[in-house]
Amino acid sequence: MARFLTKPISGARDFLPLDALRRQYVIDVIERVYQSYGFEPLDTPVMERLDTLLGKYGEEGDQLIFRVAKRGAKLQKALAAAPTEDAIADAGLRYDLTVPLARIVAEYRNQLPRYFKRYHIGPVYRADRPAKGRYREFYQCDLDIVGSSSQLVEAEVLNAGAQVLQELGFRGRAESGFRLRLNHRGVLRGLMEVSGVPAELEMDALVAVDKLDKIGLAGVEKELRARGIGEMATTALLGLMAAAPGETVAVLGWLSDTLEGSANGAQGVAELQDILTLTQGGPAGEHICIDPYLARGLSYYTGPIYEIEFPTLSGSGGAGGRYDDLIGMFSNRSIPACGLSLGLERILLIMAERGLFPQNLVGQPQALITNFDKDTLAANVAMAHALRRAGLRVDLYPDMDNLGRQFKYAEERNIPVALLLGGAEMADGAVTVKNLISGEQELMAQADVADRLRQRFQ
Amino acid sequence: MARFLTKPISGARDFLPLDALRRQYVIDVIERVYQSYGFEPLDTPVMERLDTLLGKYGEEGDQLIFRVAKRGAKLQKALAAAPTEDAIADAGLRYDLTVPLARIVAEYRNQLPRYFKRYHIGPVYRADRPAKGRYREFYQCDLDIVGSSSQLVEAEVLNAGAQVLQELGFRGRAESGFRLRLNHRGVLRGLMEVSGVPAELEMDALVAVDKLDKIGLAGVEKELRARGIGEMATTALLGLMAAAPGETVAVLGWLSDTLEGSANGAQGVAELQDILTLTQGGPAGEHICIDPYLARGLSYYTGPIYEIEFPTLSGSGGAGGRYDDLIGMFSNRSIPACGLSLGLERILLIMAERGLFPQNLVGQPQALITNFDKDTLAANVAMAHALRRAGLRVDLYPDMDNLGRQFKYAEERNIPVALLLGGAEMADGAVTVKNLISGEQELMAQADVADRLRQRFQ
Repeated sequence: MARFLTKPISGARDFLPLDALRRQYVIDVIERVYQSYGFEPLDTPVMERLDTLLGKYGEEGDQLIFRVAKRGAKLQKALAAAPTEDAIADAGLRYDLTVPLARIVAEYRNQLPRYFKRYHIGPVYRADRPAKGRYREFYQCDLDIVGSSSQLVEAEVLNAGAQVLQELGFRGRAESGFRLRLNHRGVLRGLMEVSGVPAELEMDALVAVDKLDKIGLAGVEKELRARGIGEMATTALLGLMAAAPGETVAVLGWLSDTLEGSANGAQGVAELQDILTLTQGGPAGEHICIDPYLARGLSYYTGPIYEIEFPTLSGSGGAGGRYDDLIGMFSNRSIPACGLSLGLERILLIMAERGLFPQNLVGQPQALITNFDKDTLAANVAMAHALRRAGLRVDLYPDMDNLGRQFKYAEERNIPVALLLGGAEMADGAVTVKNLISGEQELMAQADVADRLRQRFQ
Repeated sequence: MARFLTKPISGARDFLPLDALRRQYVIDVIERVYQSYGFEPLDTPVMERLDTLLGKYGEEGDQLIFRVAKRGAKLQKALAAAPTEDAIADAGLRYDLTVPLARIVAEYRNQLPRYFKRYHIGPVYRADRPAKGRYREFYQCDLDIVGSSSQLVEAEVLNAGAQVLQELGFRGRAESGFRLRLNHRGVLRGLMEVSGVPAELEMDALVAVDKLDKIGLAGVEKELRARGIGEMATTALLGLMAAAPGETVAVLGWLSDTLEGSANGAQGVAELQDILTLTQGGPAGEHICIDPYLARGLSYYTGPIYEIEFPTLSGSGGAGGRYDDLIGMFSNRSIPACGLSLGLERILLIMAERGLFPQNLVGQPQALITNFDKDTLAANVAMAHALRRAGLRVDLYPDMDNLGRQFKYAEERNIPVALLLGGAEMADGAVTVKNLISGEQELMAQADVADRLRQRFQ
């Protein structure tokens, strides 16, 4: 028989049980919190029509879409006729969860409620060059409200996201916590206006401004010049960037004064103020920092924008904002929408580094019933049923074997307790309970085992 | 702007929130039960290397694999050179969850425990012609134990599957319940041996025998002759089929007598007896029926085979068995394995028909906080946080609006309770709780709302 390559395909990953349970633990917290905020799940196919996907992510994005080949006669026809990349395929693997949302909103507009509050957690596919932390199959985790322009929506989204991270163990905004950097497209536009950056160069200037964190003021200055921003506008913009106070309340006051002459700017400041008010006392409140130079590159944001920042880590743990012109792409209309995409893969990575996963993950077996005496086999099976009915997760060693191998198996699976039921125990209505971590063992009445184990795993 | 086709791609489905929550409800029960039996989750990529998939499902299966096109220069090269179906693709979408399991067992053999007990629930892809109930993207739900030849394994798998169905509301083996039809490859082989069917015609004869349910004894007779089974063997086999008692204990005794002269048959009978003993008193016990003519077509079963049957429905709700020669396909060795694949899509369908889903699905919002007075907005937000902290799922209406529209929105989302907090209520520390189903409303102290709602949704 030939040797096969049995690694997962390039850029994708296998998740063995421990990893799968850790992922599930995080997803469970996300779902529970998002549901408590009134969001419901949506699920869509991994495959989309190729023309649903093409043209939505720019030319570079189109190149990163995995194309699914046509089949049968259609494929043969395409192959026979000087075939092109697009002619041989009729489907693609979804690139994100936003285009599917836009498709859903267009297709089911008469069935959806006035506000569509959905979360969607699932794999997306990009034919990127695989690298450390960059995968071709990875999970996105999106939360969006479609249909409202109220800033209450931003507040809910930020609170929901912050509560997820808090429940996962990220506390406060210092080292072990996270910050929610918050800005507004109107503020950025206002800053450009009062600096005298011409409208047609605004996006260029924003790309430079967005790099402040990475390249500092001097770097931004260089980049502004390289992008053709004039001398006076560059000086004015840099002056503003140097002058902005760091603290959230102070920066809002400063922005309010600075942007007095810009209608866009004033509206942005007012909306940010609303979001601050509406998140006060909520989970997001203590994490928010207004950052008037956060730009997030993407040109589709139309209002507030935000980013989750872990202090010890470059790159973001999630991001989002208001994007009122995107969800209508298949609907021929503008539809207000606001969302947050958590960086699930990154969050999992940081949790592993910081040891934030619980010791006993839900899903791992809690006890192993050993199997060494054929006369007690039926009693072992009955004990397994009783413990499972009591809510415990119990494995039953399938083959009769020496105890050393059975304990070794328990160790391989991180099962902390072994139960031994031999003839002697049977006669006494008892069972030996062995703590596989400490090595201690104790004789216990069979009737008490379920309660004792439940106490231990509470 | 052009009109877009926004339906899901042919053969695939969108799951709007209610459907997504129903699917999640079933999957949650499956996962909880399977974990209580000591199984852990496995997750593998949707894409596999094309050569991992090809040749594993027969020629017809190869044609049903969705192929993912090569990219960039590799694709251009393939397209330039009189391209074939296989030359333009390097990946495919997984066709089932068994080949990925075999790949995992080969790749991680040194990291896996002595017995690998995994479940895997996820989408698989087949480029079949879509039809009612037949999808190109559908979920499989597999439970397998790799590494043991003990019949305890079959008992555990059958018990776990039966418990899932019981917890979903399928009770007993009559109309509203299900039967576990159980047979053994050795019994089938034994019946062929004692009937005088030559070994090389065994598979042909089995195909005919397997159709007993659908075409009756006369149909089987015709089919046996058509497949070249001789006169004497056909008569003998039909005699046995007519003679087999219907009742499980009786049929085992009859088989034991009938197959006395066949070593294969005797072993099969002994193993079936073991499984009956080991499932006695467990969830599977009351559902098992020995059916000595169940063959399940698939030639890869090597021991016990079983099928879940819903009395009012043709086709199966799940099936499985022992298949000791399949998991080793990438490992160059024989590895004992035994599993059960639940027919998730079919189970969902029957549950909907029989009304087995709970009224209040976990995940749906329980209360809507209305929004009609800007002076109480902050108090509304605070109430939302308090109720969510108390474990309730609470939606907050985002825009200030007339109450009629707000109640209509609640109806669209099946939210049964609305909370109204106006100036009058504020002054009294109260809130109006409106039952949107009965229309009744009640003034309640704000401090009591969380407890009262929790009682209601317990």
